[in-house]
Amino acid sequence: MKQAGSSLKVVQLGLGPIGIASARLALAKPDLELVGAVDLSPQLAGEDLASLIPEARGRNVTVEPDLGAALSGLKPDLVLQCTGSRLVPNLQQILTCLEHGAGIVSSMEELLYPHRRYPAETRRIDEAAKANGVAVLGTGVNPGFVMDTLALCLSGACRSVRSVYVRRVVDATRRRGPLQRKIGSGMDQATFQEQVAAGKLGHVGLVESTDLIATSLGLGHEAVDETIEPVLATEALKTEHVQVASGQVAGIHHRAWTVGRGMRGTLERVELELWMYLGAPDPADEVVLDSDPPVRCRIEGGIAGDQATAAMLINSVPRVAAAAPGLQTMATLPLVHWRG
Amino acid sequence: MKQAGSSLKVVQLGLGPIGIASARLALAKPDLELVGAVDLSPQLAGEDLASLIPEARGRNVTVEPDLGAALSGLKPDLVLQCTGSRLVPNLQQILTCLEHGAGIVSSMEELLYPHRRYPAETRRIDEAAKANGVAVLGTGVNPGFVMDTLALCLSGACRSVRSVYVRRVVDATRRRGPLQRKIGSGMDQATFQEQVAAGKLGHVGLVESTDLIATSLGLGHEAVDETIEPVLATEALKTEHVQVASGQVAGIHHRAWTVGRGMRGTLERVELELWMYLGAPDPADEVVLDSDPPVRCRIEGGIAGDQATAAMLINSVPRVAAAAPGLQTMATLPLVHWRG
Repeated sequence: MKQAGSSLKVVQLGLGPIGIASARLALAKPDLELVGAVDLSPQLAGEDLASLIPEARGRNVTVEPDLGAALSGLKPDLVLQCTGSRLVPNLQQILTCLEHGAGIVSSMEELLYPHRRYPAETRRIDEAAKANGVAVLGTGVNPGFVMDTLALCLSGACRSVRSVYVRRVVDATRRRGPLQRKIGSGMDQATFQEQVAAGKLGHVGLVESTDLIATSLGLGHEAVDETIEPVLATEALKTEHVQVASGQVAGIHHRAWTVGRGMRGTLERVELELWMYLGAPDPADEVVLDSDPPVRCRIEGGIAGDQATAAMLINSVPRVAAAAPGLQTMATLPLVHWRG
Repeated sequence: MKQAGSSLKVVQLGLGPIGIASARLALAKPDLELVGAVDLSPQLAGEDLASLIPEARGRNVTVEPDLGAALSGLKPDLVLQCTGSRLVPNLQQILTCLEHGAGIVSSMEELLYPHRRYPAETRRIDEAAKANGVAVLGTGVNPGFVMDTLALCLSGACRSVRSVYVRRVVDATRRRGPLQRKIGSGMDQATFQEQVAAGKLGHVGLVESTDLIATSLGLGHEAVDETIEPVLATEALKTEHVQVASGQVAGIHHRAWTVGRGMRGTLERVELELWMYLGAPDPADEVVLDSDPPVRCRIEGGIAGDQATAAMLINSVPRVAAAAPGLQTMATLPLVHWRG
């Protein structure tokens, strides 16, 4: 645990679009000191971070390719991990950070709430964090905020909750190319279904958000089911990154919901629904609680994008630095808010 | 700090409308045990709580008039304090609870964030809580949630925040008689202004909500200003509780905002605006952040009423029971959410 008031040393791990947004925001925060950057891609090794992020000019941060070596030298308080969505391929990275005594704030979607899908890995992370006296958090805007934390927060004003429904509608037209491709834009239906079956399409984190809400509310559910369906273009579409013919895939409709006979009390269901496609009308984030009192909350336009994820990461840093050692979640940390 | 899993013993202090709602909800929670009730009014002393709350039948809870005596006998983990809005007249009550080793969750509006207006009392409460190893929280739906915690929560997804604006519009028509009178319904303008000057009208807590937001965001403001204006009826109005002639007061328009040359960074202002009058159209809670990304959040109909305040109190109990000793705020506790 770090003393309040002193500045926190952070290392940026991963320099994709989210990592760059995260590092840029860290550079702007007076209470954070970005002491290093690590990326595994050989093209970046040895580069001055300023070649990727102009704001890093004069900071003398060189991109290093070896995480362990970098951490041994830099001894950061925390690592900002932005390297992937999946837990298993990135587990060793997490353990390396912890063994070097660095806490972690990660954009890894599966780390939001890995407890059900990866119980053994979850235990390993929690134990390594405790052994090294640091905390770990997976967060972001989605998962991490609009489809989970916000719903939990709103439930605080309720005497009883019978069901939770969250809908996020994103018009992918102005999002990054990789995101447009990750939602299948421009594919034919057969390719889309193959890619879904291979686990390559869809929004990683929807199941974890559902699980985090349902577990925190004490639903007593047995599992979370999901479906990923294509949204087909009804006319030809064209963005900066993809071209979609009428009848081809414009994006995804991803749903996840709790199931199980073991459900307790009066709470029946948590259901999350994500529409993310080119030209989606009326983008918004909505949380509807069937509750007493009832709650119907709408964020006009939705809180979209990588910038909000970077914000959640950086705004979480002081909370994770001050947290009890172990694997934390958005439901166990004090309220994450912006601070000027 | 209480062990997780064991049930928490609570005492209800104050049996007005909010206290009754709080006690009723506590009775419904399997992880809480309502072991006692205290109210200073002589008519209630010695009554079976079941005469006020049918759900208390068979619980053998007798309303006691003496707080210290009751706490000595009952030894609760926490007191649910619902006795008033103002800190100073209720300070001794708080200290009595703490001296008996009981934590406090309170609906007292000024206790949400008393630090600026009552620094000496704040320090006394914090020290007494620490000396006795328990935590204290002031919360409710407003203050406590819709005009402060929700805004802070939404700021978590922002890279930068320039201003915070919260508007709550409440149609008081179906609210309790005391609330309708507290907003001046049926008064003439002169009486309204006299009562405002005497500190008897308006919504206690708006200044504290503004202060909590601005301080948490690190605004560096010097003070919070407020105005309380009447909303005049444009036609005759009649509710179950009051009659209002055209031209008489239908309710209040209460505003509070940060002021001070000392403001830091890019954040300019926090402004809260509460409209609460008979017949107010389009009731809603709205949070608007001038921020990156921008956030415009609306709760249709608003989260109104004593039931939501009781919910915030009871949902906060596990967080306060597990918190570090001292005076906590909604910005220092882990996310308060409902749990079945």
